[in-house]
Amino acid sequence: MEPTDVIDAAIRRNAKTLNEAEAKCLLASHGVPVVAEAVVRTAPEAVRQAALFGFPVVMKGLGARLTHKSDRGLVALDLRSEAEVGEAFARIRDAAGSDWEGCLVQALVPGRREFAAGFFRDPQFGPVVMFGLGGIFAEAFEDVVFRMPPLSRAEIDGMIEALACRKLLSDFRGETAVDRVQLVQALTGMCRLGAIHSAIKEIDINPLIVQPDGKIVAVDALIGLDTDHREESDRNRVSRDQAAIDQAIDQMVHPESIAVVGARRAGGNSLSGADLFKQLQDFGFPGRLYPINPRASETIHGCKAYPDLFSLPEIPDHVIISVPAKFVPGVLSDCAAVGIKNIHIFTAGFKETGEEEGLQLQVKIEDIAQKGGLHVIGPNCMGLYVPGSRMVTWPEAPARSGPVAFISQSGGHARDFTKLASSRFGIHFSVVVSYGNALTLDGTDFLRYAAKDDQTRVILMYLEGIADGRAFFDVVRQVSLIKPVIILKAGLTDAGVRVAASHTGALAGSRKIWDAFFCQSGAVRATSLNEMAAFTQSFLHLKKCPGRRVAILGSGGGISVNAADACTSSGLILPAFPPGLFTVDGEPMSTAGNIITNPIDAHRMFFDLPLLGRMIKRLTEGSHVDMYIVFLQLDWLFTDSGRDVAYLEKIATYIATEGKRLADGNPLVVAWRRNLEIPVLQELTTRIQRVLLNAGVPVYEGISSAVSALSKLAGYHEFINRVETERKSS
Amino acid sequence: MEPTDVIDAAIRRNAKTLNEAEAKCLLASHGVPVVAEAVVRTAPEAVRQAALFGFPVVMKGLGARLTHKSDRGLVALDLRSEAEVGEAFARIRDAAGSDWEGCLVQALVPGRREFAAGFFRDPQFGPVVMFGLGGIFAEAFEDVVFRMPPLSRAEIDGMIEALACRKLLSDFRGETAVDRVQLVQALTGMCRLGAIHSAIKEIDINPLIVQPDGKIVAVDALIGLDTDHREESDRNRVSRDQAAIDQAIDQMVHPESIAVVGARRAGGNSLSGADLFKQLQDFGFPGRLYPINPRASETIHGCKAYPDLFSLPEIPDHVIISVPAKFVPGVLSDCAAVGIKNIHIFTAGFKETGEEEGLQLQVKIEDIAQKGGLHVIGPNCMGLYVPGSRMVTWPEAPARSGPVAFISQSGGHARDFTKLASSRFGIHFSVVVSYGNALTLDGTDFLRYAAKDDQTRVILMYLEGIADGRAFFDVVRQVSLIKPVIILKAGLTDAGVRVAASHTGALAGSRKIWDAFFCQSGAVRATSLNEMAAFTQSFLHLKKCPGRRVAILGSGGGISVNAADACTSSGLILPAFPPGLFTVDGEPMSTAGNIITNPIDAHRMFFDLPLLGRMIKRLTEGSHVDMYIVFLQLDWLFTDSGRDVAYLEKIATYIATEGKRLADGNPLVVAWRRNLEIPVLQELTTRIQRVLLNAGVPVYEGISSAVSALSKLAGYHEFINRVETERKSS
Repeated sequence: MEPTDVIDAAIRRNAKTLNEAEAKCLLASHGVPVVAEAVVRTAPEAVRQAALFGFPVVMKGLGARLTHKSDRGLVALDLRSEAEVGEAFARIRDAAGSDWEGCLVQALVPGRREFAAGFFRDPQFGPVVMFGLGGIFAEAFEDVVFRMPPLSRAEIDGMIEALACRKLLSDFRGETAVDRVQLVQALTGMCRLGAIHSAIKEIDINPLIVQPDGKIVAVDALIGLDTDHREESDRNRVSRDQAAIDQAIDQMVHPESIAVVGARRAGGNSLSGADLFKQLQDFGFPGRLYPINPRASETIHGCKAYPDLFSLPEIPDHVIISVPAKFVPGVLSDCAAVGIKNIHIFTAGFKETGEEEGLQLQVKIEDIAQKGGLHVIGPNCMGLYVPGSRMVTWPEAPARSGPVAFISQSGGHARDFTKLASSRFGIHFSVVVSYGNALTLDGTDFLRYAAKDDQTRVILMYLEGIADGRAFFDVVRQVSLIKPVIILKAGLTDAGVRVAASHTGALAGSRKIWDAFFCQSGAVRATSLNEMAAFTQSFLHLKKCPGRRVAILGSGGGISVNAADACTSSGLILPAFPPGLFTVDGEPMSTAGNIITNPIDAHRMFFDLPLLGRMIKRLTEGSHVDMYIVFLQLDWLFTDSGRDVAYLEKIATYIATEGKRLADGNPLVVAWRRNLEIPVLQELTTRIQRVLLNAGVPVYEGISSAVSALSKLAGYHEFINRVETERKSS
Repeated sequence: MEPTDVIDAAIRRNAKTLNEAEAKCLLASHGVPVVAEAVVRTAPEAVRQAALFGFPVVMKGLGARLTHKSDRGLVALDLRSEAEVGEAFARIRDAAGSDWEGCLVQALVPGRREFAAGFFRDPQFGPVVMFGLGGIFAEAFEDVVFRMPPLSRAEIDGMIEALACRKLLSDFRGETAVDRVQLVQALTGMCRLGAIHSAIKEIDINPLIVQPDGKIVAVDALIGLDTDHREESDRNRVSRDQAAIDQAIDQMVHPESIAVVGARRAGGNSLSGADLFKQLQDFGFPGRLYPINPRASETIHGCKAYPDLFSLPEIPDHVIISVPAKFVPGVLSDCAAVGIKNIHIFTAGFKETGEEEGLQLQVKIEDIAQKGGLHVIGPNCMGLYVPGSRMVTWPEAPARSGPVAFISQSGGHARDFTKLASSRFGIHFSVVVSYGNALTLDGTDFLRYAAKDDQTRVILMYLEGIADGRAFFDVVRQVSLIKPVIILKAGLTDAGVRVAASHTGALAGSRKIWDAFFCQSGAVRATSLNEMAAFTQSFLHLKKCPGRRVAILGSGGGISVNAADACTSSGLILPAFPPGLFTVDGEPMSTAGNIITNPIDAHRMFFDLPLLGRMIKRLTEGSHVDMYIVFLQLDWLFTDSGRDVAYLEKIATYIATEGKRLADGNPLVVAWRRNLEIPVLQELTTRIQRVLLNAGVPVYEGISSAVSALSKLAGYHEFINRVETERKSS
């Protein structure tokens, strides 16, 4: 019987699952090794089959409604004789009662290493593959890893590496390591089966036994059906005209005219509601601005005001709606009527409130947007900040434009992070968007746009949830190969999920799937805005990363120990340098008071800069490391230089020029620490940062921040290399 | 046979282990349930015993040299008939060859849940108990927890909670939860056995099966012997006169006279070696100072100089040695000859170099110190910083004295942290000591001292290693009940261990034992100096902590989601407040643009401070939470107040007075974030911090820092309560 026939037959009889024999038959036809077994319906038949397989055998009850078989007494293991087989047959038939459809006689599979493999469809991410510990301990350990298919050999190896119980798959206590080729075939076969047949809701192979010779075999399997299924493409997806979306975003990012519906008439402080119109004006938007307010007098902030969209002299490239929530549907209908397509709804009070009124309002505007083919940013968000177009909706945004895009579900983060990044790290932005509840345009759309934008070299995202996770995953994986995508994903704990729902109405998703997302997509994972800034620096300034071996050159023994711990925890390698590698006046450098094995705790090199240079040169020429962290303990240098601020700047200049040159293209970064919070040191820090950043040397507060930024850089380059290797070999 | 007899007999025959039957016999006599078994030496005897137990049975080879029995074919499971028993007997005897001493016949123990329990002596910490997953998967998962005996019932419960596989010990797939009373008896009995018999090097029970009815039974056990053993008290311990040590430290902390051997003659910059004498003088040490330098002219820095210790007019209370390492033994001998007892060796170049010369020098000075009964701080350290006594060895130390002691193996950390803490957080110090290689005085000695010191309310430690871990553990556990002890333990990764060895020659110890240390001792674990500062603030200012429920009041939706994730990850509870809890003008507060479920993202409360007050009052009166974090997004407040710095200070003052009053003794802290790095905001931050800290309100940069500080506070109070409950019940 063909797989499709089996499934169709099951659906016709309205079965929620295939029976065990059918399930294994399907799996076997897709390359999953299954146990030798036969369906029997009488005791003599059972005995005959058992004799054929050879004793001992296993017998199980068979039936579409028979689950949790062990607990229901429907499994008999290790039957060693004809008599035992006969008895077991009778016992199982009795225990199964009317659910009984037959018995399954199986050869007893040797092996103590029980795994589980599975496939299911996640509401956000679609098909997901699971692999991990099986058998009865599965639920005690929950040691399973998820990935999104299709899976490469490297990704399957990565799944194994991510398991706590990975040692079981190596040579283990006299048993041979798992046959990886066979395992890869089985997992990819299972995925293919799930992918082809959209009626398959889930596949659960447990146990998948690894035999003493390393061969795998599926001993039990379940295939669940979605009797009410539709084709994949129908799910969660409305057909979208991607070219139109790209064009709409481009028009909103570079508009020649903007209308603000709900432009405020008078002054007043900003707490009674944001004055978006004034922000645009103050930031110097050079195009045509139309304030709209039915109760306005002739002008608002010196611009001619209009009572409604119908009275405008043109169809504006972009409309910002900032009226109370209950008026939004009306304004949106006006947009559709006038022929306006590009809209940012600033107003909050929709789905994110979790209240009936807000939910209904969101349904209403969604309907208007769908029917009118509108492209909507928001609602409940700050919209666009595009320094190049002089567009912004909040005060005091940096005017300078740069190579970084930031796509943020939170408006607060968009506003805060752009200030933080530009003021502290000289990071400037091409386009920033806060898109809140993601009515029609979501993170994926803006990501596509940023990927194509020539000005953008690094893309940052703050995400709470995403409706079509799979589409997002596919786009991130493509984009990552061209530009690094750094993502801060929030809402990964129970409390976080709840708060994300009330912030942007987002469905935050499961932590294990997001782990898969970061493993497979090449996206760089940040866990805070500060980390995001640190990582952005590395990706902006450091072009290559040959490996994970790092040298730390700085001062302080305690700090060196902490730094070593940080390296190991982040997966960087801190090789110990051989004695005598460094010399002073032709003599090996003294170890008293200096740790010179790595980290190099040798304060004097900052007062003998050519020594610092020689050390870097020695390390580069001998290929001892792949990257460098120079650590500046600013208080010590300040004091020991006799508070010579100019000298400290000279140190920074030396690192930015000679240091960088001697590192010969390998990543070289500076980490600093400051304990005294006094203005002269604060200002000095700012100046030193400027010197280094202008030369393209990233600067971090604290060694552990530098360590994690470099570790992310290394991880990204490993991803690129892995994908390239796979491409070549395929 | 009495346990002692069995052990003595084994030692007489020079056995490294007891045989399996002997081991279980000993364990059974100490309350560990063991499997029913019998030793047999002939096949008929085996068959007879099997019949007595009832089939199926298990048979194993027996012999002191028989380890890894499964792998050697010395175990036969599930023997179901006399014939099978007879065959197995012959097979095992053959496989064991000349190591065979007999066979063990055991009843087959039902149960799939296999655990392991053990006992061993750690070189640093002495007796350690282990409990965790057993059976063949033990080495794949390494899911075991260590604790130091004796164990309370609560500590054993804590061990179980710390296991990844803890679900196996609850009701699990039709099997009953483990009998905790029996498990506690078994583990405490095993500890007692190990404690009583110092010749026992290790005990390894594996598997310890949890049967379907929850009863436990030891199926296999090994007891290893230290045939060369000495009594516990001899190990690692030199008899110490604790009263003399306390007195010596007290004298060094409050000296009336100090001599500096190696006082430098001329000026020069500080890089050619520290000028300790000048530091003492500059800091205003009010007692008698004696510079010693054989080549000195009549005075050094205006003080009469002496050529050597013999020419001094008195025996100084404290001597600082700062001469090259090779001269240190000579100076130390002089000290002993003159009758000087209290010494700080600043010089480096000893054990920490890892080189032969340094190691020998350390042995030499250790010998001199022992024989002379000297109390030595160092070598390779910065020694004492005591603001009250005007003692310090580094420049620019804060002059003000305070309630915090800092005991640091690293001089750099001592110097950095005291500056950081006082300059940023108004934390001042009673006594700070950097003690490097810990020749005679180590962290434990200084901890004892700080515990007794009336001025000290909070004790901080930076530790790389400790020679006698057990003594340290015992002291920390006592002291924690009186004063919080916050410890930053470094050197917990491979690279960290290596660097710690070259920094202070420290033996860093195993991560799992340090986990036990922090679980059992009540010490508060910090992972960086910044965390240490954050935690110190909480412990200095917050007196009680009724629970883990926290309210966060602040601005920003994205920040709220991140904060929620941080709370869950740190083990704080963020209860969702019911709708309508807060009112504005008698109406329930609007949800549009505000998240009011917790975190409360309602920016307007900072511009309507009585509203903030009413919210805190409502939460306190309704007992909705145990603690409060007020979050100040300084950029937003700065902008939205129209850059009204005075208003922002007013917000801080309101929180420090009314806010604190309305929290009614429950912890209330402030977290702030600043994105724009501009002087006016930096100064404002400093002023706001001062207002809050002066009122006893801790201030943290970032919500996650506040969250982890409060979580540590809660953990400490839980420890105190647990110990008090145990005391009452015993």
